[in-house]
Amino acid sequence: MYRSHTNGELRASHIGQEVTLAGWVQANRKISANLLFVDLRDRYGITQLNFTDDSTSDVENSLISRASKLGREFVIQVKGTVIERSSKNDNIPTGEIEIKVSELLVLNAAKTPPFTIEDDTDGGEELRAQYRYLDLRRNPVQQKLRLRNHVALETRKFLDSKGFLDVETPYLIKSTPEGARDFVVPSRMNQGEFYALPQSPQTFKQLLMVSGFDRYYQIVKCFRDEDLRADRQPEFTQIDCEMAFVEQEDILNMFEGLIKHLFQTVRGITFEGDFPRMTYAEAMEKYGSDKPDIRFGMEFTDLKTLSAGKGFSIFDNAEAVIGIAVPGASEYTRKQLDEITDWVKRPQIGALGLIYVKCNADGTFKSSVDKFYDEAALKTWAEASGAKAGDLIFVLSGELDKTRKQMNELRLRMGTELGLRKPDDFKPLWVLDFPLLEWDENSGRYHAMHHPFTSPKPEDFSLIDTEPGKVRANAYDLAMNGVELGGGSIRIHDRALQSRMFELLGFTPEQAQEQFGFLLNAFEYGAPPHGGLAFGLDRLVATMGGSDSIRDYIAFPKNNSGRDVMIDAPSVIDEAQLKELGIKL
Amino acid sequence: MYRSHTNGELRASHIGQEVTLAGWVQANRKISANLLFVDLRDRYGITQLNFTDDSTSDVENSLISRASKLGREFVIQVKGTVIERSSKNDNIPTGEIEIKVSELLVLNAAKTPPFTIEDDTDGGEELRAQYRYLDLRRNPVQQKLRLRNHVALETRKFLDSKGFLDVETPYLIKSTPEGARDFVVPSRMNQGEFYALPQSPQTFKQLLMVSGFDRYYQIVKCFRDEDLRADRQPEFTQIDCEMAFVEQEDILNMFEGLIKHLFQTVRGITFEGDFPRMTYAEAMEKYGSDKPDIRFGMEFTDLKTLSAGKGFSIFDNAEAVIGIAVPGASEYTRKQLDEITDWVKRPQIGALGLIYVKCNADGTFKSSVDKFYDEAALKTWAEASGAKAGDLIFVLSGELDKTRKQMNELRLRMGTELGLRKPDDFKPLWVLDFPLLEWDENSGRYHAMHHPFTSPKPEDFSLIDTEPGKVRANAYDLAMNGVELGGGSIRIHDRALQSRMFELLGFTPEQAQEQFGFLLNAFEYGAPPHGGLAFGLDRLVATMGGSDSIRDYIAFPKNNSGRDVMIDAPSVIDEAQLKELGIKL
Repeated sequence: MYRSHTNGELRASHIGQEVTLAGWVQANRKISANLLFVDLRDRYGITQLNFTDDSTSDVENSLISRASKLGREFVIQVKGTVIERSSKNDNIPTGEIEIKVSELLVLNAAKTPPFTIEDDTDGGEELRAQYRYLDLRRNPVQQKLRLRNHVALETRKFLDSKGFLDVETPYLIKSTPEGARDFVVPSRMNQGEFYALPQSPQTFKQLLMVSGFDRYYQIVKCFRDEDLRADRQPEFTQIDCEMAFVEQEDILNMFEGLIKHLFQTVRGITFEGDFPRMTYAEAMEKYGSDKPDIRFGMEFTDLKTLSAGKGFSIFDNAEAVIGIAVPGASEYTRKQLDEITDWVKRPQIGALGLIYVKCNADGTFKSSVDKFYDEAALKTWAEASGAKAGDLIFVLSGELDKTRKQMNELRLRMGTELGLRKPDDFKPLWVLDFPLLEWDENSGRYHAMHHPFTSPKPEDFSLIDTEPGKVRANAYDLAMNGVELGGGSIRIHDRALQSRMFELLGFTPEQAQEQFGFLLNAFEYGAPPHGGLAFGLDRLVATMGGSDSIRDYIAFPKNNSGRDVMIDAPSVIDEAQLKELGIKL
Repeated sequence: MYRSHTNGELRASHIGQEVTLAGWVQANRKISANLLFVDLRDRYGITQLNFTDDSTSDVENSLISRASKLGREFVIQVKGTVIERSSKNDNIPTGEIEIKVSELLVLNAAKTPPFTIEDDTDGGEELRAQYRYLDLRRNPVQQKLRLRNHVALETRKFLDSKGFLDVETPYLIKSTPEGARDFVVPSRMNQGEFYALPQSPQTFKQLLMVSGFDRYYQIVKCFRDEDLRADRQPEFTQIDCEMAFVEQEDILNMFEGLIKHLFQTVRGITFEGDFPRMTYAEAMEKYGSDKPDIRFGMEFTDLKTLSAGKGFSIFDNAEAVIGIAVPGASEYTRKQLDEITDWVKRPQIGALGLIYVKCNADGTFKSSVDKFYDEAALKTWAEASGAKAGDLIFVLSGELDKTRKQMNELRLRMGTELGLRKPDDFKPLWVLDFPLLEWDENSGRYHAMHHPFTSPKPEDFSLIDTEPGKVRANAYDLAMNGVELGGGSIRIHDRALQSRMFELLGFTPEQAQEQFGFLLNAFEYGAPPHGGLAFGLDRLVATMGGSDSIRDYIAFPKNNSGRDVMIDAPSVIDEAQLKELGIKL
């Protein structure tokens, strides 16, 4: 071993001991000709090294002379004695002691790093990505990956205690018809054919239920070849779970237990009582989102009826008129209101305009539609939306779905702006009864909202043939602070129903058999009722860390172009290899 | 929940309780018109269901009539009372009780499975692979995957207790120059470029050491596009570990501790004392293998000198003459000896012939080379090889390396034949001091024996420029029972030495920088001394399970053509998708 102790380990009780330490030079402070301090850093902490003049005749090679040449990030090993510090440092656990150094060995020199290795670094995002191995030395980044490690391990311990088995499923699988999102892998042994990387181990975990494994989990990489955003990586990690002989209630209870366990053990946070629940329909009506942030109010108010018939044709002709009451914002200036109006009109949000009503402190009202609505009318809006004196009402109108989405964006923006989305406030919410299908205008057919293996609610079976768009699914999501932590469903375990589902999704029976024959066949040999859930580990740890940047919680993330700028991947490969694989550019 | 208890849970203490059970019909035995037994199975065990005539007027729909129609593998739910069994079954934990059934619900019917779901199934290998989800229902197969789950979890617990952090490394990485073994993934966002799937996270874990993570582990899938064998899958799982500020001794101690922990917790087996160690040179000399099975003797004896000068030109002209003493085999028949001779002459082994010496029980000797060697000469062979009366000596000759390989095969075969390779006997062995390089005749250059990041032994530094083939590495393997469980090395952490290593391997400086610039650069910013090790999880669990078929320990394995016959992968993908990826066939 290159060390007897780590740099976070020594205390006053070690005073007098001979020790060997190793680590990185964090700082080098020459106090006087006879005294120099070096802060030695490793994952475990920082220890102060004390170099004094050892009065050697060989001044050039004296300890203090050699120490004075140690640059930032040099890797060194020292031997010395633990002594009491003259001026204690209460900010670090080793602050009572320092090492009186007797031997110094430089294990590796270091060039000056391109940015400072400190909590608040001077490096920009791109530079830090390029030198990710240096960024990873910074304490806040290490803490994020330690949090991730902790969450993963506690997940395993909890699920193991509940009888779940960790079973690995394959990474080289079969491409699916929604193949555009699959990463594919040309096969050398089977030229002209391709494996796909899994978007999730969905069908395999269902086969494990058919196999009687009863409770399965896996923390597993999944892959999706989609255009990227800040919160989406081409490879991502799921906590993937499945249970047999269960109903929805059993699954919700089990995984509510997991989330409570994680917050308790990793963050020391206790959730009292059961997580609240809301139907998808209610979430859309109140928040315009299937993952509402319920850390704050500003719930939607339907103003359609109250606003009708006063000659304001924009509202009269709109499918939906939706208001929110923004607390304490009645004194927003014209400039502020204009900026917010411009913001909702940006193409990313797409509102045509924004109506406001100031509920003044003196009880009067002032709106951007005073021409059509008198104070009495505006007062009814205030009462309906719960706006009090001093609040501001925002109103959007238009098609129902679009208006809800726009208002969701505005609500979240206002929540952020008013400081209502506190990073250390965690508000879970089960969202239930998702629709089974959603209509896709482009393809002119239904898509599965969750996935094709999701079971309709038995009480909606009768709607499958008549109004498929109204069928609700036994599907659920766990939202927290505006983030979808995960979701799942009770699965279909009956061949006939699964075939009907594929038919609804536009598969011919031949296509269904060709693509998913292995699963349909499996259902004929005694498939148990089953269901499951998957959490996105990247999002879960980012949420638990109080951040919305999942990239910070990934050791080696890719940028928005899907590139790892550090290793410069992807890259070109040579002709000979292409030929072996039977593919050409 | 579909059940109040599992099928492995009920005991005499539950007698009188109303319970609900669910599971698969294992067997259905009609005892009489009034009595029928069903064995109900799940992962946890088997419970006997007792159906008696409930004297309903509707005979067709009576419980017993409906139960009589339950086929094997039907999924059912029953309600009933726990009663004492009239004839106990000591072979199963639930053998004292049975369920007097009051309600029966068929959750899913089943076709007759293509093979029996029993410990000794009647299904052949191919059929079981095609219906893997049914094969996975069999108890011995479930036990293997439970063993795997247990090993993985205990690995995590042990490494966590030693301060190792589980850090995920990317799956979509950069293709390496030894790219022929890489699976590649065409990038849609960066057309014409390819990611590679990792053969191991080697460079990433080294970067984590440069980042100061100090102790890293990951249980991670790796990929190699090689022609397959029974013990090799295109995707395989590694327990991948790395430590900073360590020497070889620290790593050996740490992972010897892990293996001891795993055998103790998973198999209840205690290893006394330290694992034995042997240099690579000694292993090759004594066993002709770098992963010797030391459960039995039959060590190699060098007979070159003893056999020389007696006119037997085959031996006189051979680089090596190697013998082994096979215990108690002196009475092998001519037919047996001919069969073994034919076996070593098969192209897979490639010996030109096989010489034997029978050390008869009466003290005389009889050999296939009596013409050249008299009894006195043969006696010296027996003494040298430790053959006693009743033993048989086999001798092979030829080029040193080839003869050692051939004799290794023969030794293992004889060990198996004589029952000396007991599946429940576990004999670990550290093999140390592997050569740094091996000469490759085909390419006319050196290859890295372990990988290009392995450090030469400091005492051999001077040989690098003069006799690179003689340089030994700080590299080590852990062998057990003739299987390489894992291996690793102390890594190079110095840019100049790493560059020299790439040069030895035939890289130009430009190629080295192009391919591994990120690592070479990282070494300039303060890289600590570090080293690590990786175990093959598939091989480890198979070895711990006493089997040499790793495929049995993988939930969804691929066949020798790299195909998953169950899901029929790989498969063709459509033109549109190829076009999106910018590739053609």
